[in-house]
Amino acid sequence: MRAEIIAVGTELLLGQVVNTNATFLSEELASLGFEVYYHTVVGDNSDRLETVLKLADTRSDLVVLCGGLGPTEDDLTKQVVAKHVGKTLVRDEAGYQKLQRFFEKREQPMTENNLLQALIIEGGTGLANRTGLAVGIFYQAPTVNYLLLPGPPNELKPMVYEQAIPLLKKQFIQEEQLISRVLRFYGIGESRLVTELKDLIDKQTNPTVAPYAKPNEVTLRLTVKCTTASEGQQLLDELEQVIMNRVGEFFYGYGETNSLANVVVDLLKDQQKTVTAAESLTAGLFQATLGSIAGVSAVFPGGFVTYTAATKHAFLGIDEALLQSKGTVSRECVEAMAQHARNLAQTDYALAFSGVAGPDTIEGQEVGTVWIALASEEGTQTIRQFIPRNRQSIRENAVMTGLDLLRKQLLKKQ
Amino acid sequence: MRAEIIAVGTELLLGQVVNTNATFLSEELASLGFEVYYHTVVGDNSDRLETVLKLADTRSDLVVLCGGLGPTEDDLTKQVVAKHVGKTLVRDEAGYQKLQRFFEKREQPMTENNLLQALIIEGGTGLANRTGLAVGIFYQAPTVNYLLLPGPPNELKPMVYEQAIPLLKKQFIQEEQLISRVLRFYGIGESRLVTELKDLIDKQTNPTVAPYAKPNEVTLRLTVKCTTASEGQQLLDELEQVIMNRVGEFFYGYGETNSLANVVVDLLKDQQKTVTAAESLTAGLFQATLGSIAGVSAVFPGGFVTYTAATKHAFLGIDEALLQSKGTVSRECVEAMAQHARNLAQTDYALAFSGVAGPDTIEGQEVGTVWIALASEEGTQTIRQFIPRNRQSIRENAVMTGLDLLRKQLLKKQ
Repeated sequence: MRAEIIAVGTELLLGQVVNTNATFLSEELASLGFEVYYHTVVGDNSDRLETVLKLADTRSDLVVLCGGLGPTEDDLTKQVVAKHVGKTLVRDEAGYQKLQRFFEKREQPMTENNLLQALIIEGGTGLANRTGLAVGIFYQAPTVNYLLLPGPPNELKPMVYEQAIPLLKKQFIQEEQLISRVLRFYGIGESRLVTELKDLIDKQTNPTVAPYAKPNEVTLRLTVKCTTASEGQQLLDELEQVIMNRVGEFFYGYGETNSLANVVVDLLKDQQKTVTAAESLTAGLFQATLGSIAGVSAVFPGGFVTYTAATKHAFLGIDEALLQSKGTVSRECVEAMAQHARNLAQTDYALAFSGVAGPDTIEGQEVGTVWIALASEEGTQTIRQFIPRNRQSIRENAVMTGLDLLRKQLLKKQ
Repeated sequence: MRAEIIAVGTELLLGQVVNTNATFLSEELASLGFEVYYHTVVGDNSDRLETVLKLADTRSDLVVLCGGLGPTEDDLTKQVVAKHVGKTLVRDEAGYQKLQRFFEKREQPMTENNLLQALIIEGGTGLANRTGLAVGIFYQAPTVNYLLLPGPPNELKPMVYEQAIPLLKKQFIQEEQLISRVLRFYGIGESRLVTELKDLIDKQTNPTVAPYAKPNEVTLRLTVKCTTASEGQQLLDELEQVIMNRVGEFFYGYGETNSLANVVVDLLKDQQKTVTAAESLTAGLFQATLGSIAGVSAVFPGGFVTYTAATKHAFLGIDEALLQSKGTVSRECVEAMAQHARNLAQTDYALAFSGVAGPDTIEGQEVGTVWIALASEEGTQTIRQFIPRNRQSIRENAVMTGLDLLRKQLLKKQ
């Protein structure tokens, strides 16, 4: 089944509002087994909307429209769709009563234009709007189905979850199921991952393999069509095994909303270990990344941002002679930072970051030079990286590398 | 001039990524005087992209495509556009050299597919990618112009600002000049700002006023059509004055790429003052935000992340009795954090953050409770906020509030 999404609203075309509705609807439609091939945004204009509807009819089984159901002059979605399918608009009794109650409670007269919100396409189904006034509409034409939803996300989402999804399930109920699994990788670029898995991606039919480049990492989404969940999971297991044999060393976790920081915090919690940090280059970004995860205080008591030689000495007690002779961007400095931070915070692990984020060089070292150290009871591991990119990328990349270094160390202990 | 935006990427149709590029490009195109009538999203599929291109040719003077310029199998935007206009792909010498240097520095072999990133449409103009590897392309066909941009926003935005906008200005804006000025506001919501300026927005002709809600702030873009720059600047000055009389207390700076952190760092530099921080709630996010600004080490030597009561005592020397009796989420604690941090770092200013980011309450205090203190030689200012939102919003909002508190203090000294 093919679906497409048409968002109606001039504010979207002016760049005043982000089209998050299309993203939300796409995910929900995919989970129902729809193939979404197009998103369109069109302004509050009858002719252009009619043009878009004509095109949609030629290529989709389900056309989802959002926006333009309100009471203002601009709102014309249902009028245009009604004309397009050759029907009139009629009153939705439940929607009309809700509208009446709303104005009675406020002791305001209901102006004529407000009535628009309770109208639906003749022969269609009204969808109640729990958090707003404009009713939604599901209308079945001979070859195309139309779903009309309100634009505000806080009205659209409840209507989708409570009204539209049950209705679409009933209407389009499928023998086939669709199951997805997301694998996450760090330390391998999208292009190399795709090269390693080229034959799998090329010959894919069922399951399919789709790579996604995310900031500083890559994900693979495996999707299978199946008649039973257990059959689907088995097919995914088999494909995952083939993938792991080739690039398993870069795999760190499952799930669309997972992250390297999340995996590291979970490992620390499982092993009842703690971590601190001393950050120069990254200036708190490593710790802020840990802080984004709920419940992290159980494994992370705090740490240091030592951006200058003076604070490396004052906060961490690093020998001024070392800072002078070796420089702050050096193996010796970053190792001392990690070791001193670990002692001060009395944690199991400590990470330290030093380097040159640019645009200027430091101590004659090139922009992109990064030193990372991990101190533990077994000693200190140090890595040097060269990331010749922009300031933000260098810092984000260093944080990810630090997380991955700690993750690998923690995995050795399992 | 009519423009439309085509975003290419199956991840958008699966709902894995929000199409923020379309929003960004719409705002920039509007400021150049383009009328954007359509956004389209299409997957990584040659036939469907070709269909969309044919349609775009019939209705737009400028077709902006984003995404699909990378090195993977999925990336086919430039191949499809080249075929559509009947041209081949040729090497962009500058882009090729950047690619070579990138792989040489990393001491990795450059795989064949990577070369794709340095190809442009024969007869087109290559647009350098300062923050990535895939070059952009501007191609002029007899009746339509095509602009091809990379998908990652951190590559697309610099390319638009530095390469595409100057090029489009030269190409499309001849007699008339178009000048924009962006005013940035913190501490006022979009709906209130629009209400305060309703008459200006409603009656706008030249200059125009467009409000944009950004994360944690609002911007106003004033755009004027004029024959000379000085005439244009004068019209903008007059309009700005009217706006400032109404909402000037919330204004903090100019410019599309400016930020509250940037303004604060500039003020500190101008006044030769320094700042440190002690962060609980925000766990390093305030310092990482400062760290994102080049040259910040002149005014920010470092600071502390004290996520637990133990580190508030150990790192900052806060009295355990105070922590016990008043709690860590309290006026007394956050004031002590700021004062102790200022003494330890020997800075002019110190900010401290404590609060409840959720999902769990702390010491019986509600999620969203935030305390922020600013210590200086004149004493300590403290504010309490209640931000009943999600974890990330609470932390980001606290950082912005801290920056604004420091900004206002610095302005008093000017």
